[in-house]
Amino acid sequence: MTELAFIEKFLKANRNYVLEKFTDKASLAVADKDNPNDLLTEVDLTLQKRFVEAVAKTYSDDVVIGEESGLNVLPQNPDGRVWIIDPIDGTYNFVRGLNPAFAIAIAFAREGFAQAAGVFMPRNGLMFLAEAGAGAYCNGKRMTVSTVQHFDEACMEIDFGTGKNRNILVRRAGDALRQAGQVRCQGSAVVGICQVASGDVDGYLHIGLDPWDYAAAQLVAEEAGALATRLDGEPLRLFDGKQGVLISNGAIHKTVLALLTR
Amino acid sequence: MTELAFIEKFLKANRNYVLEKFTDKASLAVADKDNPNDLLTEVDLTLQKRFVEAVAKTYSDDVVIGEESGLNVLPQNPDGRVWIIDPIDGTYNFVRGLNPAFAIAIAFAREGFAQAAGVFMPRNGLMFLAEAGAGAYCNGKRMTVSTVQHFDEACMEIDFGTGKNRNILVRRAGDALRQAGQVRCQGSAVVGICQVASGDVDGYLHIGLDPWDYAAAQLVAEEAGALATRLDGEPLRLFDGKQGVLISNGAIHKTVLALLTR
Repeated sequence: MTELAFIEKFLKANRNYVLEKFTDKASLAVADKDNPNDLLTEVDLTLQKRFVEAVAKTYSDDVVIGEESGLNVLPQNPDGRVWIIDPIDGTYNFVRGLNPAFAIAIAFAREGFAQAAGVFMPRNGLMFLAEAGAGAYCNGKRMTVSTVQHFDEACMEIDFGTGKNRNILVRRAGDALRQAGQVRCQGSAVVGICQVASGDVDGYLHIGLDPWDYAAAQLVAEEAGALATRLDGEPLRLFDGKQGVLISNGAIHKTVLALLTR
Repeated sequence: MTELAFIEKFLKANRNYVLEKFTDKASLAVADKDNPNDLLTEVDLTLQKRFVEAVAKTYSDDVVIGEESGLNVLPQNPDGRVWIIDPIDGTYNFVRGLNPAFAIAIAFAREGFAQAAGVFMPRNGLMFLAEAGAGAYCNGKRMTVSTVQHFDEACMEIDFGTGKNRNILVRRAGDALRQAGQVRCQGSAVVGICQVASGDVDGYLHIGLDPWDYAAAQLVAEEAGALATRLDGEPLRLFDGKQGVLISNGAIHKTVLALLTR
């Protein structure tokens, strides 16, 4: 079984569990993490635990990192075989019912870049799969990024995040916010980046993400033709610290970078 | 037949037409209105035309206003019987595939306030109905706004609109943008305001909307317990000019108003 097939199998096996919990979310045990806006659900924890067990069974020497407690660290050997899971990206949306903007995201990385990736959006049944060099697919259909050329006609997904990063974002990305053709914020990095891949939006911007927030979606987007950099224009790697994320259709990339202030 | 029943019947009768066009959107004839970000589709025009014909048949003396060409004016007698339609709110989302954030919105107004309202979101099948004094319902279930008390824990839908209004919005609402617990922008006033009604978000803000953008959704929200004002805090009427729109769960309303600058 390839790493991609392993990811796909896990996502499909857990689809119904997530949907059931979403439908029944009034009964969810929701605990605060840092603050009430950063919600942790039993779904996050259960999915991460299941994934750790699945990897241990099939790839016993591999490392797993992920969003939830204990695993939210960078790997000791960043060039080794690393699995990266965000069990639910968009937890706040999940809890508030702002569907369908939440997703399960899983990537397999080597040499600091994702090699295989899967993203599943349970509410609308969209499954995004990508393998390095082999293209990106949504429910079996090959994807390509949009062809929008001009930033004042572009739809930018700008991720406002939570309090601690909001001020920095509004300052650094204020001109991009003002000059984009359209602005959207769905509150899920994974969903936003996958929509760059599908051509539904033209760019995605965040001031600082952890690797589990973008590892899988970055590969999906790049395999659909997207350009992915840090906000300083350097290539976007997985484990070199939070330098911001800009993933676009390529055509608008330079314009956005030039509009950002330090 | 009550005005509400008339609205509901029209929405149900046109559901499949909209869904078929969305599915087949590659073939849509999309014309530019003012600019490429303000897309007009044949769906808008067809729905508006059908609604005008339906009103003429049942309520021949009534006035119809709406978003599309010819009808996008204020009524000569603002206190009379006026029907207000936005055939597709969120046209850009409809065309780009950013579902499910688009909706058909219809209101019946008298004395400058909506008396009956219906909103239909074809992609997820949600039908919002409200009658003045009789509550608001989503697919038959009574709605109430959220109970979130503090703005730094609130989810604000901030509508960034298009170029001409964006600068003003970022200036006037900059502090609200920075201090809200969470920020979302879905690009549809109707959808955003209905999510205040359903309690999925806690507030909706726009710098200046036309009556067809909020007439129906405002009544839905108010009947679910929301507070609706202009940005200067005055009651939000339908035909007194674009003074901005703030619709919230009530608890956070004063805080938002105080954060806005002139």
